[in-house]
Amino acid sequence: VSTPHYNQLLLSPAQRDLIEVVLVSPRNPLNIGAVARAMANFGFERLSVVAPYAPHWREAKSAVGAPELLQQARETATLAEAVSQCAFVIGTGTLTHRKPDQPVVTLPEIAMHLQAALRQRGRIALVLGPEKHGLTRDDLSYCHVLLEIPTDPRQPSMNLGQAAAVCLYEIACRSWEVEDDSQGEVCEFPPFDQTAAETMERGAPSALLDRAADLIEETMIAAHYSPESMQAANRYDVRVMLRRMNLSALDARRIMGLFRRILRSLQAPRN
Amino acid sequence: VSTPHYNQLLLSPAQRDLIEVVLVSPRNPLNIGAVARAMANFGFERLSVVAPYAPHWREAKSAVGAPELLQQARETATLAEAVSQCAFVIGTGTLTHRKPDQPVVTLPEIAMHLQAALRQRGRIALVLGPEKHGLTRDDLSYCHVLLEIPTDPRQPSMNLGQAAAVCLYEIACRSWEVEDDSQGEVCEFPPFDQTAAETMERGAPSALLDRAADLIEETMIAAHYSPESMQAANRYDVRVMLRRMNLSALDARRIMGLFRRILRSLQAPRN
Repeated sequence: VSTPHYNQLLLSPAQRDLIEVVLVSPRNPLNIGAVARAMANFGFERLSVVAPYAPHWREAKSAVGAPELLQQARETATLAEAVSQCAFVIGTGTLTHRKPDQPVVTLPEIAMHLQAALRQRGRIALVLGPEKHGLTRDDLSYCHVLLEIPTDPRQPSMNLGQAAAVCLYEIACRSWEVEDDSQGEVCEFPPFDQTAAETMERGAPSALLDRAADLIEETMIAAHYSPESMQAANRYDVRVMLRRMNLSALDARRIMGLFRRILRSLQAPRN
Repeated sequence: VSTPHYNQLLLSPAQRDLIEVVLVSPRNPLNIGAVARAMANFGFERLSVVAPYAPHWREAKSAVGAPELLQQARETATLAEAVSQCAFVIGTGTLTHRKPDQPVVTLPEIAMHLQAALRQRGRIALVLGPEKHGLTRDDLSYCHVLLEIPTDPRQPSMNLGQAAAVCLYEIACRSWEVEDDSQGEVCEFPPFDQTAAETMERGAPSALLDRAADLIEETMIAAHYSPESMQAANRYDVRVMLRRMNLSALDARRIMGLFRRILRSLQAPRN
């Protein structure tokens, strides 16, 4: 039933359902609640909280109008786990001290990227870091792009709930054209290892990239290409590189097939 | 000095200086602080607080990075006083129960209106109401437009600090073309009763419209056109109408000249 309303969210419910918000190690439960409230304001429902600091975060009073959303939020131990089903992972942050390894997109430009991701009907994660320091370099290695909110250089650090509100406003309301080809159907996404051709053409979900990365790492070690002192750095580089390549699920599986073969050859006993 | 920064605010400092944020009767000082923080994030400095509830609001800890902004904020007893120098007053709210007397603009459309106001180099106010109930009908009678943030109809009520952040993001960062004709000069605005021709062509500031409204009211009473039982309603209608007319300062003065003459004639002793 469509209620007459003066203004409209531009994304359909099915499209909004593809977008998850992920909070990494938030310290203050009031901020988690504020994020939940902004999500409800802009019609988003899927929240994941990674390694929260306070145990009773689900009771945050600041989640005005969104207590169920908070109750139903997912809690995971790692960011990798939280974004495992997502084919496009957007990290948020500012560029104060370092040049990131991910392409940087400013918030007003995000539509273009989201559009491509929505067209592929892959899940999307918007990842926000902890209050004081934001996402670490390691967190960002799970992200396809780094999203920056334009701010005054004198005061770039935003409150977590306000940053989430601004991002979700941009995603839900700004004037970009999105073709909604879901036609009102409920978007039940198959798990990543389903082999239907349609699924294969979609962007590779994060967990599949992680499996590919593990296999590549194992191969590098087997080929004596990754000395122990370099293994952590190599693991990071492969993770970042795989996200930069914009692989479909099929691409990822082809790469894995090749590396499995190589690995087997390397491990085969030589006469 | 321009610091190299990946992303940029689209409005120049001189343009941002024309935009004031006005909070009407905010209840929670933490929300006032949160608004101050968002203002600092997006490069705004002028805050007015109308009839605040808590006496020690200037000490709000939530004003991270913006304690001076809070210290320098203006406190006024009435909204009329807070917006007196503004030629374009934007009220915020949702349209849940009533059809407003002001034109409704959704946030993504505000650029067009701001552009016109900035071109006239008149001051602009963004007015946000108290947490629970928002702006009253009487508050809105001082506004030229009602700004609505598109939200999910199931949960339209936003947190004050988050609503401010979203509005200021849209105003400071979204991709609209603004000609900055200030060329870096400091925008010191003359008080409204300065008679320079240039000032006259600008939009009439709110205090000038209030003076015109007082004169019209006096005239209506003198002409026995406004019985006592109708005076409050008539006052409201005149206030709203004058804002709908989009008057320049010169227009307002012409109207006042005419009504002054009429009033004098009406009050002259008749033989």
